[in-house]
Amino acid sequence: MRAAIFRQGEIVVDTMPEPVPGSGQVLVKTLACGICGSDLHARKHAHRLAAIAARIPGRKPMDPSRDVVFGHEFCCEIIDHGPGTQKRFKAGTRVCALPALLTPTGPQGIGYSNENVGGYAERMLLSEPLLLEVPNGLPPEHAALTEPLAVGVHAVEKARVQGGEVPLVIGCGPVGLAVIAALKIKGLHPIIAADYSPARRALAERLGADVVIDPAHTQPYASWAEHAAMSAEEKAARPPWQSFQPALKPALIFECVGVPGLIQQIFEGAPRDARVIVVGVCMESDHAEPLLGIIKELNIQYVYAYTPEEFAASLRLIAEGQVDAASMVTAQVGIDGVAQAFEDLANPERHTKIIVEPWR
Amino acid sequence: MRAAIFRQGEIVVDTMPEPVPGSGQVLVKTLACGICGSDLHARKHAHRLAAIAARIPGRKPMDPSRDVVFGHEFCCEIIDHGPGTQKRFKAGTRVCALPALLTPTGPQGIGYSNENVGGYAERMLLSEPLLLEVPNGLPPEHAALTEPLAVGVHAVEKARVQGGEVPLVIGCGPVGLAVIAALKIKGLHPIIAADYSPARRALAERLGADVVIDPAHTQPYASWAEHAAMSAEEKAARPPWQSFQPALKPALIFECVGVPGLIQQIFEGAPRDARVIVVGVCMESDHAEPLLGIIKELNIQYVYAYTPEEFAASLRLIAEGQVDAASMVTAQVGIDGVAQAFEDLANPERHTKIIVEPWR
Repeated sequence: MRAAIFRQGEIVVDTMPEPVPGSGQVLVKTLACGICGSDLHARKHAHRLAAIAARIPGRKPMDPSRDVVFGHEFCCEIIDHGPGTQKRFKAGTRVCALPALLTPTGPQGIGYSNENVGGYAERMLLSEPLLLEVPNGLPPEHAALTEPLAVGVHAVEKARVQGGEVPLVIGCGPVGLAVIAALKIKGLHPIIAADYSPARRALAERLGADVVIDPAHTQPYASWAEHAAMSAEEKAARPPWQSFQPALKPALIFECVGVPGLIQQIFEGAPRDARVIVVGVCMESDHAEPLLGIIKELNIQYVYAYTPEEFAASLRLIAEGQVDAASMVTAQVGIDGVAQAFEDLANPERHTKIIVEPWR
Repeated sequence: MRAAIFRQGEIVVDTMPEPVPGSGQVLVKTLACGICGSDLHARKHAHRLAAIAARIPGRKPMDPSRDVVFGHEFCCEIIDHGPGTQKRFKAGTRVCALPALLTPTGPQGIGYSNENVGGYAERMLLSEPLLLEVPNGLPPEHAALTEPLAVGVHAVEKARVQGGEVPLVIGCGPVGLAVIAALKIKGLHPIIAADYSPARRALAERLGADVVIDPAHTQPYASWAEHAAMSAEEKAARPPWQSFQPALKPALIFECVGVPGLIQQIFEGAPRDARVIVVGVCMESDHAEPLLGIIKELNIQYVYAYTPEEFAASLRLIAEGQVDAASMVTAQVGIDGVAQAFEDLANPERHTKIIVEPWR
């Protein structure tokens, strides 16, 4: 079969052996697979990523000197069932699944693995127990957005929302947009979002942001503070020793950029007692001045991935039209277009989410 | 009056004008004042500390080029009442207070201020509304430990303990010891504590640590994991997708060292989903690899100071004998001994808490 393969730091098109389903596995045709910012990061920082993953017990990192097929945001169609399957869904059924294969020694990742082919290939293997049927009629390129939406849903879950917080989303790439969509569903308002790109800000509004900010012209934290002023009742309810502090509602800051220096920016700009949810995946070493975080008593919640329940909920949200997933998709390419798509995604004005359709 | 003054990076003894109580203030005789690790840090990093504090709205940083009298862990005796006071406590009453002066424009710190003299002086000013009477008979050198204990009490409050967590305290200086004491009162067990110093480990046991570790010989996180194994019921209650992860109780890691590199060590060593409470005050720029924190979904809570309620509770805990405060005090010195005490505190085998008694 054909695949766009990460090989020695580049994305190349080549043929590779057909996958053969093992026990409990199904062979699927990849209908659609989103390109994730992490794939771009992983291509650039593959060795660093592998070195760090190797230091975490229980994780088997990819070896970047060997072939890898990326792609962990997929929607597929069942072709065949391996041994020991229950055939819950018949051939032809469209399915999503979180990007993992169940094995006797534990789950293994799909998409950053030398063994488990990701969605930039014509066919791949999935574990039957993880399959979710795509509700009738949802196009595969929208169902493929389940995974990135689940990242946002999970981030908002981990934010421990109690009601009354005012969220600020830093960065409106696919991760930031997913966070905005999840915040809207949670009912938190106003949702304030910042991005340098006009196209991304327009998308942020479409997905639920109430206020969008261009950090080149408006200081995001100043704008946040304008929208986070306490009511007279909230002011009166504060303990007396807080009466000299700014009367602001609790801050939820979502870091959805993932480059070095962002945490320091948040340390500088965040109000006291802010809860910071780090959703952007910074793969480099980072620096910050902890004293700022200490004096402000900031809370930093690093988040990663999602639970199976959050993943299933995300597919439902898209299928029910509660999240306007379609608006994120800016291009659809075949296997031959993956390498160029990696380049094109550098321009936020042109692209947000490019979907790979390996059958094209 | 005489004072040990921070002047141009050094601690020198000199005379200075008698403080005169303003509206709502009382003049007090300093009976006892602990030397805090932050004072040692502040002496070394005064300019950096001032520069960072200047960037936080609402804070008036000290100017390290002008005289400062440190000392924010004090027990005093009332000498005289200023205008506009209610004379709640008569002259001669022993009092503690959190280190702040109330002013019409908000609270100002005591101890890192060019205006407000701290406890390394014979006399100082306090705000009457903040005074807490020292319960009868508690020696001033023990009442002076209220402030550092409050730091530990606050850190444990901010840890959002739900029961069932297993705490690991990294560093058993006064801050770590206060955290251990507060954890013991909270009823969390086993309390695991790590320090290179045998003297500090002995103190940690005395204050409530159940397991003490010398990191030179035992990996703290490996030892923590041994004591954090889930029961069979806890194992069975996990969601199925967690069944391949190590069956460990939730981790609460208290960082009580406050030097660069500690957060990275925690990123490396901490188990998945650990809640990290940063109590040590790192005044330098720090670096870390966020990807480790991300993949493990760590939560970092920076903490600073305490509430008035926590401060009052800490004084009660010492007075009621629930915390063996006396065990922390390793020396008592006069004003002339402060400079040498700053040097001596570098050796954890010899000293934990040195109390300044300016009347000596």
